[in-house]
Amino acid sequence: MGVVVNLEDGKREAASIKHLIDLTAADMARVNELILSKAGSDVEMIPQVANHLISSGGKRLRPMVTLAAAQMFGYSGDGHVKLAMAVEFMHTATLLHDDVVDESGMRRGKKTARMIWGNQASVLVGDYLLGQAFRVMVDVGSLDALDILSSAASVIAEGEVMQLAAAKNLETTEDEHFAVIKAKTAALFSAAAEVGPVIAGATRTDRAALRSYGMNLGLAFQLIDDALDYGGSSKDLGKNVGDDFREGKVTLPVILAYRRGTASERVFWKKAIEQNSADDTGLEQAIGLMKRHAAIADTIGRARHFGEIARDALAPLEATPQKSALIDVIDFCISRVS
Amino acid sequence: MGVVVNLEDGKREAASIKHLIDLTAADMARVNELILSKAGSDVEMIPQVANHLISSGGKRLRPMVTLAAAQMFGYSGDGHVKLAMAVEFMHTATLLHDDVVDESGMRRGKKTARMIWGNQASVLVGDYLLGQAFRVMVDVGSLDALDILSSAASVIAEGEVMQLAAAKNLETTEDEHFAVIKAKTAALFSAAAEVGPVIAGATRTDRAALRSYGMNLGLAFQLIDDALDYGGSSKDLGKNVGDDFREGKVTLPVILAYRRGTASERVFWKKAIEQNSADDTGLEQAIGLMKRHAAIADTIGRARHFGEIARDALAPLEATPQKSALIDVIDFCISRVS
Repeated sequence: MGVVVNLEDGKREAASIKHLIDLTAADMARVNELILSKAGSDVEMIPQVANHLISSGGKRLRPMVTLAAAQMFGYSGDGHVKLAMAVEFMHTATLLHDDVVDESGMRRGKKTARMIWGNQASVLVGDYLLGQAFRVMVDVGSLDALDILSSAASVIAEGEVMQLAAAKNLETTEDEHFAVIKAKTAALFSAAAEVGPVIAGATRTDRAALRSYGMNLGLAFQLIDDALDYGGSSKDLGKNVGDDFREGKVTLPVILAYRRGTASERVFWKKAIEQNSADDTGLEQAIGLMKRHAAIADTIGRARHFGEIARDALAPLEATPQKSALIDVIDFCISRVS
Repeated sequence: MGVVVNLEDGKREAASIKHLIDLTAADMARVNELILSKAGSDVEMIPQVANHLISSGGKRLRPMVTLAAAQMFGYSGDGHVKLAMAVEFMHTATLLHDDVVDESGMRRGKKTARMIWGNQASVLVGDYLLGQAFRVMVDVGSLDALDILSSAASVIAEGEVMQLAAAKNLETTEDEHFAVIKAKTAALFSAAAEVGPVIAGATRTDRAALRSYGMNLGLAFQLIDDALDYGGSSKDLGKNVGDDFREGKVTLPVILAYRRGTASERVFWKKAIEQNSADDTGLEQAIGLMKRHAAIADTIGRARHFGEIARDALAPLEATPQKSALIDVIDFCISRVS
């Protein structure tokens, strides 16, 4: 399709995560080493399945956020490296299970693990990575960090079930949808950011700032992802435009187009989403309806709203390279649609 | 089928878990309350799926072991109740995922959750329960207990993958098979027993005793379970005789019958197990071959061997009602086949 979604109010200055990457490069090298070591097992299938996804070129945004958030409060031990690794494993475990639940064929431009090794291996290796994540967290020894990350694990699963229960329900309200993405996506960003100040022994206020930053960044991130699924190229995404549509996923662009649509448009959406009749002709029509009702543009607008809250969450903190790099991340996420 | 497997060397005195049930009744009431509360969620599907399995009449052997193991070292707080609940949730999460992996239709005489709510809900609610288990463990605040249980979570998943990788491989050696059941079943019994002395602040020696007791009890338990699948009634089991056979599972009775079999018998086993041709006529033949080679009796013999080690693990400990109740559990597990 190759539809390009332009920001309506003009492009921001090109945002990038280069600063974040530079600031965390040395620590990330240790995270990556730990990832490889903890994805290992004498049971050959485990590193095979785990490394397929681990080495598939994810940006590792979440662990970088953890590292930067610890650095900005002067942390100098190795606990942040371990927590960053645990965060990435929780994320990887979630992706493995998600692909099973969604019956997805592609992820980050590669076949999903379930297509190669089957659903069974994906479920079990996900469980293994989650177990390993907890072991490493326990090794760090911070009960506060354990509390934050284990709560996130529950909340993420709760969000996924919520999504499953609301699947194909076009009457889902915007608020209900925000509750889902807050749980399934934003909770891990929030935990990833908060454990930084926690491990560094920062104040409650600083913890709350990073928690809020992560939560709102996560919401923005997910909304942009959902907008991208109806525009942007397959190459950028690592998934195909229209994947969400073909799977009948009720994301915000769909919710807005449906709510704002005419009676006959709603018949189209019902047929496409609820009756699994979504095909490529349907996709073109869907994108057309979204444009008519500014559903993609407004999804991006909502993302920008959360991005602004994330930025303000960090505002009172002392100016540091890490603070500035974390703010760049917000702009980077939003600029993916530009 | 209704084949009854008799112990060859005469029945022991009828063993029972009555003492264990009595000793832990008050604490188990608190565990059950906590289970119901922590399986709750505003997302309706979660308590539905969780309670289907939780209320399906499992014996709750693992949490009772945790409670008794804490009591025997004079523990008086409420940490053991929380850890017992976490152990049961880890077990429940494993069952939910197992049924997806094994494509099982029945468990404890009821339809499996996946048959009612689908594989997707079973995977995700399992993840939720695991997350809740960790939250409750973190709440207890013992890093040692967290270390033991999070390690068990990894090892269990590793064992399940090992089993998946070895699936339908009749050349599996007895030792390889022991490694699988040690990881997938015994590790949780071991952790359940060890966290008792840990939370009670008992000595390293006492911890090691309970860890060894749990590990060997778990091995005995699994082997008897595998023997029962080729004898005993559907009513006792909550599953149908021959389930393992029909699913082509390579359990110890199969391994022994195959290794001891003639060339033509091995052709039968290959066809039945590797080519998914196991049916009821095949089951009768399989049980016949197992009897010819004493495969079921010797599986029970192996179980008894581990049972003896479990008993000796507790031998040096002071005589207490809890110690005696935990020894009864060994006999109870083994007497299920009598």
